[in-house]
Amino acid sequence: MAFQASNPEFEMQARASFAKQTAMTSLGAELTRVEPGVVEISIPYSADLTQQNGFMHAGIITTIADTACGYAAYTLMPTNSDVLSVEFKMNLLRPATGSKFAAVAEVLKPGRTLTVVRADVFATDEDDGRNLIATMLATMICLRKA
Amino acid sequence: MAFQASNPEFEMQARASFAKQTAMTSLGAELTRVEPGVVEISIPYSADLTQQNGFMHAGIITTIADTACGYAAYTLMPTNSDVLSVEFKMNLLRPATGSKFAAVAEVLKPGRTLTVVRADVFATDEDDGRNLIATMLATMICLRKA
Amino acid sequence: MAFQASNPEFEMQARASFAKQTAMTSLGAELTRVEPGVVEISIPYSADLTQQNGFMHAGIITTIADTACGYAAYTLMPTNSDVLSVEFKMNLLRPATGSKFAAVAEVLKPGRTLTVVRADVFATDEDDGRNLIATMLATMICLRKA
Amino acid sequence: MAFQASNPEFEMQARASFAKQTAMTSLGAELTRVEPGVVEISIPYSADLTQQNGFMHAGIITTIADTACGYAAYTLMPTNSDVLSVEFKMNLLRPATGSKFAAVAEVLKPGRTLTVVRADVFATDEDDGRNLIATMLATMICLRKA
Repeated sequence: MAFQASNPEFEMQARASFAKQTAMTSLGAELTRVEPGVVEISIPYSADLTQQNGFMHAGIITTIADTACGYAAYTLMPTNSDVLSVEFKMNLLRPATGSKFAAVAEVLKPGRTLTVVRADVFATDEDDGRNLIATMLATMICLRKA
Repeated sequence: MAFQASNPEFEMQARASFAKQTAMTSLGAELTRVEPGVVEISIPYSADLTQQNGFMHAGIITTIADTACGYAAYTLMPTNSDVLSVEFKMNLLRPATGSKFAAVAEVLKPGRTLTVVRADVFATDEDDGRNLIATMLATMICLRKA
Repeated sequence: MAFQASNPEFEMQARASFAKQTAMTSLGAELTRVEPGVVEISIPYSADLTQQNGFMHAGIITTIADTACGYAAYTLMPTNSDVLSVEFKMNLLRPATGSKFAAVAEVLKPGRTLTVVRADVFATDEDDGRNLIATMLATMICLRKA
Repeated sequence: MAFQASNPEFEMQARASFAKQTAMTSLGAELTRVEPGVVEISIPYSADLTQQNGFMHAGIITTIADTACGYAAYTLMPTNSDVLSVEFKMNLLRPATGSKFAAVAEVLKPGRTLTVVRADVFATDEDDGRNLIATMLATMICLRKA
């Protein structure tokens, strides 16, 4: 499933929109890959963002997965669009342990109004390699800017 | 759907576990209601936790909804349990604008292993009253502590 | 959450569209309630529609819940609309045993394009009363007819 | 993601359990592939199983996807197990037109209690080739038989 971006400035616009997401900066997340229909967002482990056992909070993992899905959809939208999340479903597969987490989102089905995106979240650790810890299935909506 | 808690210390234990979630403190979230099968978590609007339009990030709203679902399930679990999220699905109904957000989670079906929980997230605003902005349907798992 | 139907013929049109769903007739499903934003679809137990333990198949229960969600959304759409399912999530809470099953769908948030609907499925039995066996959270889309 | 089946009779047992699902026979579905962690179920188009536009009903497509997810999980479970659906989420990507539909389920994460499975549903048509029409993300539970 390789897609073509109709917007030649898709990467610049995705990066510009991401930069406006104060939540990303506050959480320490970075946009580490932007291709037509594919976006990766990474976040280091932080002891300030855990649940009760010291694992990264499922909500924080969801936050980067949702954002990756949104921008993966956005790369395929026309110029002068904005993207919002309609809904997503997240399965937590393993505890979010590790030194770094990367959410890789790939568009499954682009559409004029709705785009369906899948994201896998991987934890990386020096000892344990790269593990799939969560997976998301999401619906994004394209809004035309005034 | 009124449930009985088998653990007489359900509220103290939910509050103690919540206090260990550093993500909650970092995001400014508070546990504002703990009853058998019902938990509310509130968070004020923060300009540091937004998406690209200045709305609270869907992931942050999801984080409080997920946590509320987890502790709603936890109130009905036996002593010496822990709770983890198996999965959740979130529908974003309206932009997360407002001065404060409250996720109210209610257990639909408790179980020895799995508990299904529903959460509604409301935004409150001086002008606009209280609006339903999101809804979650989640599955939580009970782990027995060693 | 009481809604007004803008289409005065919402009930007649929902019933007419339901009548075109050959799947409903083949499965023995009936449209047992049509109100603005609320639809109920009922189906009797059938030994021909079970999974491996003789319970009604989760997919069949999902079929009536999805249809109920679709028509609940449809009652609030303008004249000359059609409705399609975008996505749904279903939690199976108890085995689908009983003599009859009813999916009750209620619109949570109507919209010009997307409508979010929740459905609860109840099993009824002579001995055991009425039990919640499943719950759905769904997104429906409004299409304007040519 | 290649998995090993611990149960040497996984295929025979999956086929035996499938044969007990009267819903599969009634709908005309067939078990067309059984491998460790991978199951395919196929169904021909039937004018008796449509929604209002003559497309195969989303619920019927969901029924084969759910069943494929269940048996994909089942192939990795120990002898003397049974499998039930906990929950699933389905995105409908394109109208279900075509002469045949195949749901291909692949285990993402097997577990002692819970197994997470993804299924893609493809429509095949003489003119139009093979199209992805829907995708499911599901959680299955393993029950030990008495």
